[in-house]
Amino acid sequence: MQIIDGKKIAAEIKAEIAAEVKQIIASGGKQPHLAAILVGHDGGSETYVAGKVKDCEDCNFKSTLIRFEDSVTEEILISEVRKLNANPDVDGFIVQLPLPRHINEHKILEAIDYRKDVDGFHPVNVGRMSIGLPCFISATPFGIVELLRRYNIETAGKHCTVLGRSNIVGKPVASLLMQKNNPGDCTVTVCHSRTKDIKNYCLDADIIIAALGVPGFLKGNMVKDGAVVIDVGTTRVPVPSSETKTGFRLKGDVEFEEVAPKCSFITPVPGGVGPMTRVALMKNTLLACKGNIFSEN
Amino acid sequence: MQIIDGKKIAAEIKAEIAAEVKQIIASGGKQPHLAAILVGHDGGSETYVAGKVKDCEDCNFKSTLIRFEDSVTEEILISEVRKLNANPDVDGFIVQLPLPRHINEHKILEAIDYRKDVDGFHPVNVGRMSIGLPCFISATPFGIVELLRRYNIETAGKHCTVLGRSNIVGKPVASLLMQKNNPGDCTVTVCHSRTKDIKNYCLDADIIIAALGVPGFLKGNMVKDGAVVIDVGTTRVPVPSSETKTGFRLKGDVEFEEVAPKCSFITPVPGGVGPMTRVALMKNTLLACKGNIFSEN
Repeated sequence: MQIIDGKKIAAEIKAEIAAEVKQIIASGGKQPHLAAILVGHDGGSETYVAGKVKDCEDCNFKSTLIRFEDSVTEEILISEVRKLNANPDVDGFIVQLPLPRHINEHKILEAIDYRKDVDGFHPVNVGRMSIGLPCFISATPFGIVELLRRYNIETAGKHCTVLGRSNIVGKPVASLLMQKNNPGDCTVTVCHSRTKDIKNYCLDADIIIAALGVPGFLKGNMVKDGAVVIDVGTTRVPVPSSETKTGFRLKGDVEFEEVAPKCSFITPVPGGVGPMTRVALMKNTLLACKGNIFSEN
Repeated sequence: MQIIDGKKIAAEIKAEIAAEVKQIIASGGKQPHLAAILVGHDGGSETYVAGKVKDCEDCNFKSTLIRFEDSVTEEILISEVRKLNANPDVDGFIVQLPLPRHINEHKILEAIDYRKDVDGFHPVNVGRMSIGLPCFISATPFGIVELLRRYNIETAGKHCTVLGRSNIVGKPVASLLMQKNNPGDCTVTVCHSRTKDIKNYCLDADIIIAALGVPGFLKGNMVKDGAVVIDVGTTRVPVPSSETKTGFRLKGDVEFEEVAPKCSFITPVPGGVGPMTRVALMKNTLLACKGNIFSEN
């Protein structure tokens, strides 16, 4: 059994990006520039955006943070999006989700020029990924596929069971892994809340992507020997204050102690998929800056 | 065992559309207008486009056929697409595929305004379908889902095995049937040329969508009792000239004589999914004409 070290791989990728950017700048090229729009003062969003600004520093990117209060109107947000679309110095930008309830998230995301949509949530990027065309792949599916790639895990002809059908994990990772590609070429089964006998689809799987958001869902008796298990769950569960300062810890969808001994590869939580999702944004921003991703088709 | 009569359902839908259009026109509304661009003189394409023009007549639509020779340049085609995008009288239009080799199909399809993309091939429509937003659904997935709907076939919680991962059938029908929707809510497995033990995924399925393009692929011993089988295959196979005038007949991916007795529902070839694909275009053009599909999000 090998533990997939997402933290280590993420650091490697960041170092690769930083080195490439250094070289680009040294040879007179443009420094990648990521902008982020943050609405309100949600604690989680503040933390995520601060992490992104820090990642930009680590990667030698320029970053710009644009803040609005919770009371901002849809019109003002869209006009800011249009400004960023038109600003040639900004290679890519994100609008940190969630947005306040009076704002239509889909409307904002679709206003983003898909060529600057480094979060990969615009329908053009989702559609191009499904069709198999070059695109910005969103953070979590990118992280999962990159871990499979960097650990040389064979995927062709394997049965991959995806637990969860969310727009940000289940559906896109299923879409990626069924493509004629490497990683890819999997037989893919997508399970969700309406699936009967979910255990059978897990027991039959060579690769399990657990993204239900149900802590400890996947038990030892649901996994066959030699399986590859990727745990996307990150639920905060309360723990005695003696254990952590914060009073909670992150728990994945996988009952790690039971499942790990049966696996050929498994990701831990934390330190598996999580760190990889952060580098996806850096990778996409670099691609946007280099600017040839949509030119070929 | 019940045979799903696609020809009958397609005729019903066409009659419904025709009646609605009559009423729209009677109350002073706009007559739906479909335009088609046809390049060259490919026999299949000529037949398909002629069928679409005829369908427009049956549905009380206006239709316009725009022809180019095989030698047309990408630039000229794109400028025609832009003209149709800008023409307020044209509600929807299609570019008949395949295009000559010197033309980049994806480039042409992406030039179409997605709000007029009644074939549903533009990445925005593919992406919106995956996300679960209103969109134009392409012909074959629309036809399949509409047959399931009109025959009141239960899909929620059922295991649906899709054979084939093409961009025009396998991927989009898998995407539709995994959505939280009715029809939908299926556990979906996508199989393809790299799948091992494809028979097992078929034997386990409550619903099989066969779209490999391999005539007679699905045999009687690959289907469980009571399964629903949707046959998307339409391969021309040669037959003795005494049998048909043309010297060939259409053969599906399903060995009908063996499989049908085991099924609760099955589509024949011809007369199953085929006729339904034609009405999808009419349905989408009517939706485009009524014009509220993308306004909500």
